[in-house]
Amino acid sequence: MYVAKIAVLGYGTVGSGVVEVINTNNEIVSKNSGEKVEIKYVLDLRDFPGDPVQNILTHNFDDILNDSEVEVVVEVMGGIKPAYDFVKSSLLAGKSVCTSNKALVAAHGDELMSIAKQNDVSFLFEASVGGGIPIIRPLNRCITCDKVLKIEGILNGTTNYMLTKMGDDDMEYEDVLADAQQKGYAERNPEADVEGHDACRKIAILASMVTGKKVDFTEIPTEGITKISKTVMEYAKALGASVKLIGSAKFEGEKVWARVAPTLVYPNSPLYAVKDVFNAISVTGNMLGEVMFYGQGAGKSATASAVVSDVVELVKYKKNIYTAWTEEKQVLSDTSELVESKLIRVIASDTEKAKTAVKNIFGVSEFTTLPSKNDEFVFISQKEAQGVVCGKIEELGKAEGVKEIKNVIVVEEIC
Amino acid sequence: MYVAKIAVLGYGTVGSGVVEVINTNNEIVSKNSGEKVEIKYVLDLRDFPGDPVQNILTHNFDDILNDSEVEVVVEVMGGIKPAYDFVKSSLLAGKSVCTSNKALVAAHGDELMSIAKQNDVSFLFEASVGGGIPIIRPLNRCITCDKVLKIEGILNGTTNYMLTKMGDDDMEYEDVLADAQQKGYAERNPEADVEGHDACRKIAILASMVTGKKVDFTEIPTEGITKISKTVMEYAKALGASVKLIGSAKFEGEKVWARVAPTLVYPNSPLYAVKDVFNAISVTGNMLGEVMFYGQGAGKSATASAVVSDVVELVKYKKNIYTAWTEEKQVLSDTSELVESKLIRVIASDTEKAKTAVKNIFGVSEFTTLPSKNDEFVFISQKEAQGVVCGKIEELGKAEGVKEIKNVIVVEEIC
Repeated sequence: MYVAKIAVLGYGTVGSGVVEVINTNNEIVSKNSGEKVEIKYVLDLRDFPGDPVQNILTHNFDDILNDSEVEVVVEVMGGIKPAYDFVKSSLLAGKSVCTSNKALVAAHGDELMSIAKQNDVSFLFEASVGGGIPIIRPLNRCITCDKVLKIEGILNGTTNYMLTKMGDDDMEYEDVLADAQQKGYAERNPEADVEGHDACRKIAILASMVTGKKVDFTEIPTEGITKISKTVMEYAKALGASVKLIGSAKFEGEKVWARVAPTLVYPNSPLYAVKDVFNAISVTGNMLGEVMFYGQGAGKSATASAVVSDVVELVKYKKNIYTAWTEEKQVLSDTSELVESKLIRVIASDTEKAKTAVKNIFGVSEFTTLPSKNDEFVFISQKEAQGVVCGKIEELGKAEGVKEIKNVIVVEEIC
Repeated sequence: MYVAKIAVLGYGTVGSGVVEVINTNNEIVSKNSGEKVEIKYVLDLRDFPGDPVQNILTHNFDDILNDSEVEVVVEVMGGIKPAYDFVKSSLLAGKSVCTSNKALVAAHGDELMSIAKQNDVSFLFEASVGGGIPIIRPLNRCITCDKVLKIEGILNGTTNYMLTKMGDDDMEYEDVLADAQQKGYAERNPEADVEGHDACRKIAILASMVTGKKVDFTEIPTEGITKISKTVMEYAKALGASVKLIGSAKFEGEKVWARVAPTLVYPNSPLYAVKDVFNAISVTGNMLGEVMFYGQGAGKSATASAVVSDVVELVKYKKNIYTAWTEEKQVLSDTSELVESKLIRVIASDTEKAKTAVKNIFGVSEFTTLPSKNDEFVFISQKEAQGVVCGKIEELGKAEGVKEIKNVIVVEEIC
């Protein structure tokens, strides 16, 4: 059996998982690749005395780049520098690359795919979205005869864990954050997760795959979960629903909208039951209807499994497999055009007057209150263009009896 | 652009869906195939005056077989005869075939894949399991570096609809069956669905894909939903759970167990939230953990979309894509070895004596009762080998105070 030599860049959590998957399941990996898969190098700045990886460890990327035996490079370092340079030079040297690095794919995927194509090698990134969940390859190989109308998903496990805890265990934001940090789900600096930046890059990748053009993640309106509290979750529960951080993209004719926002999700959505650190991505096609992919969105072994499934493809198919999207830019439409409802939480100085203002401005007279909160209520606005709703919210904020508009949350539209 | 000519065998529900998908989404289908996809023939015994399909309709399969221009044959007639003969001769004539026909795949898939390989064409069957849900290709192209430990799924939409109605709408079996028939979800003769035969063929296909050997569906212990009643669903609810018809296969070393059975599923399983006609298939890998694929398990457009996604693969890749399993037979292990719990429903002539018997025989003293049912209760047995449990159930059936053991339901094991 021919031996395919690969190199792993980075021996952190995912990197050590990749080494473990390839070693533990070598028979399966090799059988499905059609060649024996062998790790020739692991690149890391650190040393790992006592770890068998030490025998194949290098601190110098050039060892890998200049070794013509290495046909697949696995980039699991994370970050843009030096990952971008390493991946680019690997592709230019005729080596295929796979990565779990969503930041890299969202920022430079278009260019790297184009370089891969020119060199008849591939740049794959199954693990960059949804961790272990197969989603990139299914989008590329299964959902191939549908016009995709919508992709939406719970794309970040940390925030989903925090929202689950707030809702089910009645905990406050600060306490669930501390708990998530203590469990290793959240970083000491949790910004990338809680501000929605991580989910934003992932929905940018998915939307780019659908349109075949580059969706610039910096242009996606992104709101995280920092304004969500135990109280908001109580209101959601009182409405028979839950709040999830949803990354979504909608496609209508030439128009594309993308967004990351806390969203009120009802039990008739398959995303409702997705709890804790799990992720799920739902894809709606014009023929297929809605399909959903569910699983562990992070974690060493699950993510590593997705990375190694790319290695199998690369070893098996050698040549350029596909270019998911080109360098052409996808223009995003203004989300203020979206016609939908919002859950609006009003803190009142005079509850009756505030409710009257809602009736006059929004034409809504159904309110939800919590026994423990006398000076506030929520309501769900009628479906209309978000631009219009924003104007009304501003008007309501100034109305007599209204102290503050505390939360405005998207209400998921069920197809 | 090169034009790929295809033929569709059968203009029933799925067949007309295939024609619709290819015509409506022709631009997408052709772009992803790399060639313009055109339907040259539709085979059906009937005529369809007024339907544009009439122009490409033939009643004679030989027209298709002898036309060297036809490179892909889509078999959506269902049943074994004459589908098997048509598929076999198409493959022997060097045409690739895709099918939605689970009966054909479960009975003759091994032989047809082997013929396809010998002729360097392919036999694909994405739509045979889970309707529109991508599962065959993900198993084959994504879950390629894991040892699969378990596959289980809600594989039949009709029975899932019926169970949902019994549980949520408090309806009796006969009424939900009539309702499902009226809605077109269940056949006039509902046996294939309600007795579990349909789910049995699907789990046989999935298990064969995992082992690479032929799992004989006639050897899979199969129980349908005919013994499930509104009362059973009430007990499940009282236990905070639900009953689903689950097709499952477990893999441990060289051992393989497969089964179809009504199963008590708790909310911590992702299958719990799968309601109505939806299907879901969960796959557990030794590295990946659990991933689940969810969507419409039947229906014209969704199933047709899966069929056409196979057409795209066949037109794009031409040569033999893969052989999912060989003609070698997979020996199935005895499910009486499985160590698990059962939900057991006891009708008592003397409730106290019956409970004492349960305590003595099963060592269980936790019982669940319903306010409306005085002379009966359920309990959950401790985890032990099913062979042992069966012996105890027999003993309990003869014990004083016990009138009848009315239901015995598998309790889903959460990994």
